[in-house]
Amino acid sequence: MAAARQVLARSVPVGSLVMSYDFSVATAVRSRGGTVDSGSVIYDAEVHAGWDILGNANGGYLMAIAARAMADAAGRPPLTVTAHYLSPGAVGPHTVEVGAVRVGRRLATMTASLVNVASGREVIRLLGSFGASDPDGPFHVDATPPAIPAYDECFVDVDGGLPDAQPIPELQQRLAMRLAPDSVGFRSGRPSGRAQVSGWFAFADGSSIDEFGLMLAADAFPPAVFNSGLPVSWVPTVEMTVHIRGLPAPGPLATVFRTRFISGGMLEEDGEVWDSEGRLVALARQLALAPRPL
Amino acid sequence: MAAARQVLARSVPVGSLVMSYDFSVATAVRSRGGTVDSGSVIYDAEVHAGWDILGNANGGYLMAIAARAMADAAGRPPLTVTAHYLSPGAVGPHTVEVGAVRVGRRLATMTASLVNVASGREVIRLLGSFGASDPDGPFHVDATPPAIPAYDECFVDVDGGLPDAQPIPELQQRLAMRLAPDSVGFRSGRPSGRAQVSGWFAFADGSSIDEFGLMLAADAFPPAVFNSGLPVSWVPTVEMTVHIRGLPAPGPLATVFRTRFISGGMLEEDGEVWDSEGRLVALARQLALAPRPL
Repeated sequence: MAAARQVLARSVPVGSLVMSYDFSVATAVRSRGGTVDSGSVIYDAEVHAGWDILGNANGGYLMAIAARAMADAAGRPPLTVTAHYLSPGAVGPHTVEVGAVRVGRRLATMTASLVNVASGREVIRLLGSFGASDPDGPFHVDATPPAIPAYDECFVDVDGGLPDAQPIPELQQRLAMRLAPDSVGFRSGRPSGRAQVSGWFAFADGSSIDEFGLMLAADAFPPAVFNSGLPVSWVPTVEMTVHIRGLPAPGPLATVFRTRFISGGMLEEDGEVWDSEGRLVALARQLALAPRPL
Repeated sequence: MAAARQVLARSVPVGSLVMSYDFSVATAVRSRGGTVDSGSVIYDAEVHAGWDILGNANGGYLMAIAARAMADAAGRPPLTVTAHYLSPGAVGPHTVEVGAVRVGRRLATMTASLVNVASGREVIRLLGSFGASDPDGPFHVDATPPAIPAYDECFVDVDGGLPDAQPIPELQQRLAMRLAPDSVGFRSGRPSGRAQVSGWFAFADGSSIDEFGLMLAADAFPPAVFNSGLPVSWVPTVEMTVHIRGLPAPGPLATVFRTRFISGGMLEEDGEVWDSEGRLVALARQLALAPRPL
């Protein structure tokens, strides 16, 4: 969760760097071989240009790359993944070192470290548990999808030429996101006063959304705090945890993000991601540094 | 989060084992020396008898032991700690191996592993970020403490001699917890039908509650799902994340726990912990295996 101020140029030249609009390509990982049974497994990955906000790779995108490697090593899909954000993600070659904590019958718990090859710096550290869901388990839901207008009635997240508009992050070129009408006020200096953002999430190229796409969806929207009335500023994520509760049905995802507590220099952001059939598919929560006037 | 069925005897004899009602004693850790700068630091710890449910040490209690070691190594208090639960916690000697992921100016990110010395088995793996809060940051709260009756009007969590009552976990002897009247129905086979439990948390010996006590408070109440109407059964925690948002003022803590989604064999439980001055001091979320009829 990091956001744009009035900066008019992207800070990272694309040049000859790898760049793909296809999320599965942009988060691909390649094992160097071996299994976690015999220690850690190293994966090669590439942080692609264009999945960033002012040159900083999106936090959900980075989690998706590392979680893909973890799931591959675990041989099962993600259930709950936590990432701690250590340094900004930049485009270029990375490695994901995956280690097994415990591999059981029902669950496999894995740790991973995403490292920038050029700088040698660790970007995120992760801990997650992986396993298949149980379709025969009990079903009891006490919640409803967010009440947002239909996709075509929501706002394309562009500035509309308003002179005081916020710039649109490069990341949004990869996505076909739409913001609910009550969520767009901050873009033109008229925040709703309530720290909430809701809207639709989809890939611009129409790709289907898998478990790793849900991790991007959990962090792709403008920070809910932008609608609080506090100054719009960087909101660096300290930690994000995503629970994967299902594989989405085709179609855009309905999302809502809320921040209820800004205190002690920190804020949480709680996210819900629902599929087109009205099923919750992910719950996300992050702890971030509260924005401070620059 | 694990709970009692109709079992009448505790499964672990106390015998000569270490046992303390004092939470700070029962979660104490002793460094073997060294600093995380030069690799990992090993701490010795003791899982005390009496902080368990039917012989399984409480998940928040286990997190508190390990997080104490992590905070000691980091030299700062916890902000967000995630634990993945790997095997049941039993009384007896344990080690906590703490490693530094990144030590920065504002935050220190640490990993830890709690291991049972007798069995050699890892019990929990943790990842957390530590740092001081910023009292000068912005303040904006859009929530109110849970609406529960005063401490003396809530229920002491005992069975009251009802023939169909659930037994009271040993852990409750260490605590002066009170359940809200609308939360106690499951104890006598009359769940409210809504997966919510609220009440007050305090230590039986009147000790003040620090950041680590908040981790216990986050996991000490009966699972909210017990009031859903589903069968009361084991609810094993896969992962729990606790955000520490403040140090509590003296007095009992007001808490509320809710489960909204039981699906795919999993459930989440969201907890809020508020202090006696009406300030939110912790947010907790866990992912657990959904109860299945035995």
